[in-house]
Amino acid sequence: MRKINLDKFKRIERETKEINIDPLQTGGKIPEFTKPSLITWLDGYSICDFCPGSLFDLKTPPVKLFVEEILPEFLGCDQTRITHGAREGKYAIMHAVTKPGDWIVVDANAHYSSIVAAERAKLNIKKTEKPAEPEYKINPEDYKKALEEIEDGTGNPAALALLTYPDGSYGNLPDAKKISEICKSKGVPLILNGAYSVGRMPLNMKELGADFIVGSGHKSMAASGPVGVLGTTEEYAEKLFRRSEYYPAKEVEMLGCTVRGMPAVSLMLSFPFVQERVKHWEKEVENARWFSEQMEKQEIAVQYGEKPHNHDLMFFMSEKLYQISKKHKKRGFFLYQGLKKRGISGIKPGLTKQFKLSTYGLEKEDLEKVINALLEIIEENNHFLNDQ
Amino acid sequence: MRKINLDKFKRIERETKEINIDPLQTGGKIPEFTKPSLITWLDGYSICDFCPGSLFDLKTPPVKLFVEEILPEFLGCDQTRITHGAREGKYAIMHAVTKPGDWIVVDANAHYSSIVAAERAKLNIKKTEKPAEPEYKINPEDYKKALEEIEDGTGNPAALALLTYPDGSYGNLPDAKKISEICKSKGVPLILNGAYSVGRMPLNMKELGADFIVGSGHKSMAASGPVGVLGTTEEYAEKLFRRSEYYPAKEVEMLGCTVRGMPAVSLMLSFPFVQERVKHWEKEVENARWFSEQMEKQEIAVQYGEKPHNHDLMFFMSEKLYQISKKHKKRGFFLYQGLKKRGISGIKPGLTKQFKLSTYGLEKEDLEKVINALLEIIEENNHFLNDQ
Repeated sequence: MRKINLDKFKRIERETKEINIDPLQTGGKIPEFTKPSLITWLDGYSICDFCPGSLFDLKTPPVKLFVEEILPEFLGCDQTRITHGAREGKYAIMHAVTKPGDWIVVDANAHYSSIVAAERAKLNIKKTEKPAEPEYKINPEDYKKALEEIEDGTGNPAALALLTYPDGSYGNLPDAKKISEICKSKGVPLILNGAYSVGRMPLNMKELGADFIVGSGHKSMAASGPVGVLGTTEEYAEKLFRRSEYYPAKEVEMLGCTVRGMPAVSLMLSFPFVQERVKHWEKEVENARWFSEQMEKQEIAVQYGEKPHNHDLMFFMSEKLYQISKKHKKRGFFLYQGLKKRGISGIKPGLTKQFKLSTYGLEKEDLEKVINALLEIIEENNHFLNDQ
Repeated sequence: MRKINLDKFKRIERETKEINIDPLQTGGKIPEFTKPSLITWLDGYSICDFCPGSLFDLKTPPVKLFVEEILPEFLGCDQTRITHGAREGKYAIMHAVTKPGDWIVVDANAHYSSIVAAERAKLNIKKTEKPAEPEYKINPEDYKKALEEIEDGTGNPAALALLTYPDGSYGNLPDAKKISEICKSKGVPLILNGAYSVGRMPLNMKELGADFIVGSGHKSMAASGPVGVLGTTEEYAEKLFRRSEYYPAKEVEMLGCTVRGMPAVSLMLSFPFVQERVKHWEKEVENARWFSEQMEKQEIAVQYGEKPHNHDLMFFMSEKLYQISKKHKKRGFFLYQGLKKRGISGIKPGLTKQFKLSTYGLEKEDLEKVINALLEIIEENNHFLNDQ
């Protein structure tokens, strides 16, 4: 065993840039005004000072009110819980309502965590048909086809379906209402993975016809993570939130209590801010579209995924940046470093040919800075392009 | 839907007392020096700025180093992971190494979360024989008997055994080494639930002969929760940390990444402090014994559980406080309120006849304050006792 100097553990600080366009980060930035309160909850089990037997019955802090009245209205469902995150919510649903060997249909753009959750629940996974370039759209017909193939192949309907709304690669928002109608007609309950929508944009589980919804506090609800939300209908609540045979206050799929710490408080503290910001979603879509237009008009990159785009998460392909990377001595890292120098982070180090980013919550002038930075970086490296 | 005023969500602050003797809280208090660093990690997915594909491969912050080198040495095991907490670790183990319908043997003093985790994993649960008053000791023979009953009844050995070390009711530390030998001789892997030991006292999974260990960051590792640790041997690592068939960087039981947020940083920041404090465990045991002696000598209450006691978590029975509660107009709450007035919290509101507390990390003079407060409260209410 080598001797490890632990001094580096005494001070581990995050370095942040002025502008962060990482899709993982834009919706999870916590409001400054919550910090003084949050600091009072940093100690381990702080939230459990007045434990009445279950996290979800806590009155101080007001988890019970939040989970029983505020979140259900916000999500458009009957019952909700706070979870460790979207993936933990998805797994809880899959584990509660299926049995090993059952089939689940997921969209071809599904996040890896949906697939891993299904693997953990020992499900057979059927993806909808590979979507076509360059929009990579998931169509309601794809669900019909996948569900029918399972029925034909196994003689039984799929146990579950899952729709990523929007997906984390292209930021596409499929027609959830039509997809839920198809699932309903086949008798298959639908999970809406709202990790990139709940807390960013208005949405309502029941209006979209889904049976379950999961959201991510750290991704899209301006909360300190890990934390998430889970919602369902009365119909499925009994199964999903079944109680322990031995400890009737404890729910089995929640392992009794889930987020027994500060992140649960952060979710609540940020909630009024989140509830307000979803009202301004149109502005966010406008900004995203403006950014996408600029990227194309200035010949920086081409946007893939739905067009015109309906979400702040966008996927770009840049032949120009890629060509530079092939000749630059820093290879693909010139882009990351060029942006960093200009106070911008969020595009993964090394990527140039294709990358995703998010314009969420950024002011127009910050978006202009990003565009200008990209233009400057290309200009600086123009000789690599002219060389060809 | 009633109209809810969200103003109360804009400022939710924790109120703390000078002295907190709640066993849930004493080991989870975070060191002051970690706070300035922690504050830089409050944003949602902060820890994922430099994601290399999995939380456990992160170099900034140094999760990889922590999980691959530092934690294994500290816990005495080959492989470790950061989890959402002890219960999530227990469930991951149970789910990974058993199948529904298998049997698990747990000590009769097991924490509810072990039972609920076993229910979630659809296991049959066999508890060791009810331990005898007033020490409530778990004996190695109890494991032998329970394991043999399962073998006789089903024709197969149990799939798993779990030992709570110490338990959360009496703070008893059973003979883990002997219990692990019995389990080994029967071919049954053993989980050590170290939620109240890892981070408080020195211990080593391999030396104790266990196959798995779980610990709690928020309960006993001075970390902001929820967060925990999980360790195992090379033998079981492959099964417990099996990779996704579709995403080879992602571990199925961890759902890819577990604590993707500030609590993981808190665990690391507090680690040097924790590593140092476990060296002073003898002092903690001395303080606990002194406190127990005072409680009995001053006729405040009688300590149940092992005697002399080997842990800071202790269970007391008080006939005197109970008699007062029967006549006091505040019923059992007089005790909680009397302590609160004196800057002491941690005994559950309403309890008098029996309660648990922890002396962990408290200075002798603080423990004296607690004893004196209890004496004063009894003195104030003496007329209720003389009335009889």
